[in-house]
Amino acid sequence: MEYENLTLHTDKYQINMMYAHWKNNSHNREAIFDAYIRNNPFHNGYTVFAGLERVVHYINNLTFTEEDIDFLRQQEENYEEGFLDELRQLSFTGTIYAMHEGEIVFPDEPLIRVQARIFEAQLIETAILNMMNYQSLIATKASRIKQVVDDDTLIEFGTRRAQEADASIWGARAAYIAGFHATSNMRAGKLFGIPTQGTNAHSWIQDHDTEEEAFMNFARALPDQTVLLVDTYDTLQSGIPNAIKIGKQLEEYGKKLKAVRLDSGDLARLSIEGRRMLDEAGMEDVQIMASNDLDEEVIMHLKLQGAKITAWGIGTKLITGARSPSLGGVYKLVAREKDNALVPVIKLSDDLAKISTPGSKKVYRIINRKTQKSEGDYVALDHEVVNDKPLKMFDPIFPQKFKYVDDYDAVDLLQPIFVDGKQVYQLPSLEDIHSYHEQQLAFIWEETLRLLNPQTYYVDLSYELWKMKQDIIEKNSLE
Amino acid sequence: MEYENLTLHTDKYQINMMYAHWKNNSHNREAIFDAYIRNNPFHNGYTVFAGLERVVHYINNLTFTEEDIDFLRQQEENYEEGFLDELRQLSFTGTIYAMHEGEIVFPDEPLIRVQARIFEAQLIETAILNMMNYQSLIATKASRIKQVVDDDTLIEFGTRRAQEADASIWGARAAYIAGFHATSNMRAGKLFGIPTQGTNAHSWIQDHDTEEEAFMNFARALPDQTVLLVDTYDTLQSGIPNAIKIGKQLEEYGKKLKAVRLDSGDLARLSIEGRRMLDEAGMEDVQIMASNDLDEEVIMHLKLQGAKITAWGIGTKLITGARSPSLGGVYKLVAREKDNALVPVIKLSDDLAKISTPGSKKVYRIINRKTQKSEGDYVALDHEVVNDKPLKMFDPIFPQKFKYVDDYDAVDLLQPIFVDGKQVYQLPSLEDIHSYHEQQLAFIWEETLRLLNPQTYYVDLSYELWKMKQDIIEKNSLE
Repeated sequence: MEYENLTLHTDKYQINMMYAHWKNNSHNREAIFDAYIRNNPFHNGYTVFAGLERVVHYINNLTFTEEDIDFLRQQEENYEEGFLDELRQLSFTGTIYAMHEGEIVFPDEPLIRVQARIFEAQLIETAILNMMNYQSLIATKASRIKQVVDDDTLIEFGTRRAQEADASIWGARAAYIAGFHATSNMRAGKLFGIPTQGTNAHSWIQDHDTEEEAFMNFARALPDQTVLLVDTYDTLQSGIPNAIKIGKQLEEYGKKLKAVRLDSGDLARLSIEGRRMLDEAGMEDVQIMASNDLDEEVIMHLKLQGAKITAWGIGTKLITGARSPSLGGVYKLVAREKDNALVPVIKLSDDLAKISTPGSKKVYRIINRKTQKSEGDYVALDHEVVNDKPLKMFDPIFPQKFKYVDDYDAVDLLQPIFVDGKQVYQLPSLEDIHSYHEQQLAFIWEETLRLLNPQTYYVDLSYELWKMKQDIIEKNSLE
Repeated sequence: MEYENLTLHTDKYQINMMYAHWKNNSHNREAIFDAYIRNNPFHNGYTVFAGLERVVHYINNLTFTEEDIDFLRQQEENYEEGFLDELRQLSFTGTIYAMHEGEIVFPDEPLIRVQARIFEAQLIETAILNMMNYQSLIATKASRIKQVVDDDTLIEFGTRRAQEADASIWGARAAYIAGFHATSNMRAGKLFGIPTQGTNAHSWIQDHDTEEEAFMNFARALPDQTVLLVDTYDTLQSGIPNAIKIGKQLEEYGKKLKAVRLDSGDLARLSIEGRRMLDEAGMEDVQIMASNDLDEEVIMHLKLQGAKITAWGIGTKLITGARSPSLGGVYKLVAREKDNALVPVIKLSDDLAKISTPGSKKVYRIINRKTQKSEGDYVALDHEVVNDKPLKMFDPIFPQKFKYVDDYDAVDLLQPIFVDGKQVYQLPSLEDIHSYHEQQLAFIWEETLRLLNPQTYYVDLSYELWKMKQDIIEKNSLE
């Protein structure tokens, strides 16, 4: 796969700030930024982190072409040639830590940490957020859907309603990370190795004189992949009986009808009746697949009504993250270079929860050795040693709420991805990302995983970090 | 600009149907498909059509690479080599009619009409819908926002929350079509010539010891483009006074502070107070710009409260089409080849409004010569002559509702884009698309344009078309 040069995939204010830094000769100063979310999407109890692979390719391809430079020269008459020369030489020379893709993550902990010259760190903010926000949003939506279907088959069907071409492929990949089995998008199949699946459309049926003929012609062409769309005329009067007829013919050739697909009407009733008819014809193996504006809520209700659907084609509401179509990830300066040292920096706000946490930090997942469940995440300063003592975990907003944990493993979640500009992280295969995701999910209590009114997961600060934050807040308030 | 080969940007069921057609030797049969919407997004009274330019490049680049062919061979063991050879030779040889980009369009009229071998027409469905749906969605959202801001400046700021990279650039372009003035996305600026704008972020302020120093360093670097973000500490106590100080210094060098930007807090109150302070300092020309989760509703309320904001940075809610993040455009077979003739085809549904309209059709906008306003759209069969007689326009669902129009111009809206595979349409410049959009908007009555509870615009059928549709429905019901 060739990776696009997306260096201009940034906001103009980044280039303006880069220019102003260059002009003030502060562009080589070191800075640390944290990318993090403030809320889980969909009122969910967790977020599934995704987007890292895309970010890695983006960073590796970070370079301004001559065409880009010419373009920038026209955009802003203030930009001097010396600045454009500096851009011409730019590549990423900094250090990036990030969560593994597929990680279960939470608000207010760094998901990606960038330490670099302010000149570079500022440039890459926009693309990092764009990729992380969308892909994590869709992985989280997919994870919610996965929770209600048990072992049913899940297929991503959303391309026609996706927000343009990139969304369709990266969304399909995000869904696969969280447990989808296949996508209909062929480009996603080719680029990422996701299994592809497809059936046929109403136009196939309409382009024949009769439904039976349409079914027969399709089965003849794809005898090993015959899924028949049964709702074009009348599902129970015509579609299912015709499908059974074709299924019998396939059996004569040693083949089997794979599934029938419902795309309209009362999916609960039609699937129950359809199941009965198929079973009576001795076709217990033929699956019933459904599609039509499905999401976790609709599926839950269908299951409650006893729907006999075991394969789900999910489109619009997955691929757009309907109801909550954006994840509000932010990228905040947490340390800056002053007098040759890195100084922690805070962004104040009247809203306590919106105050950023300063300094260069690590995130530990505190796994209780007895229960093998997580007690919460523990954010500490880089130099702190965490694994060797009973841990006091307390709520950073209400510190009087606390607990002690002693028999635990502290798992360091942030991985080095780039060190001094060099990629040190080997990108895992998509299968490995999916497996990792499943393993990590197992450490999270059910209370946090549930779809409605989940228990808030603890993301606590170490005492040292908390104290530093309080001191900086106080100092800023006094000024 | 190089255009991507997006040939695999399609659903697997299209490839499966292409294969089944090939296997049944029906792949060269002609077919006509209409792409249309069934509802306007956002409960709006109209939709702004966009996406055509992207579709044209996609079609021109339609070709399976050897790599694609290898991939397809692995995907489906049923696919025969003869089929893969057929794919290898495929390019688009059909005819496409479409609305101009920027056109004001309505539900139930063809926006794109594809006439081609079923083999090709089926392949391109997914990409056409993907591009048309997203870009029209965002153009429509932008048009709603445009309606509430009069002559204020509108800047698209959404990249970090856009659904991946393509959405950010094509969304920025769609917004420009509907009246936005600029984008922050540099790639969109380079690719489409959209003016770019950018200010600076809180990180710029945080990376300095004081706000005043940060402002000064920025103004010194970009004296012709100085927009100062005034809400990092305290907007009225610190931000605006510091901005005024810097503005005065700029004046000494013959420069001017361009604007201050508010990104949090009570935008109404802060802008009113800020305006007063700036005016008292003799800086009546300095604009107040605002950003922070804005959309047409928030802006309307701010204006109602007397907010003194004249430039708006609009991000998330524009670029994702928040609240209604997908446009449900469909692509339906309306005619198929049978015995060497094209036969109209219908898709039935229990819901009358969902029954497709068969046949090869044109769409006329009926402009009343006296009022210069549109009386509605009139969908007729290809061969019908429309402009030479008093027109009876009637509701296709309730035909007893009708009116006669006589002094009118019937404007033929569907343009030939490709004829027999050859592009015959010269893509207009983005400026021309925007101008065209503004001109077309002027033909639509206010009742249809209003943001809340708009009057439904008439999309009527010619008597001949309506009669044919009724006959086919009746014939199908009797079978």
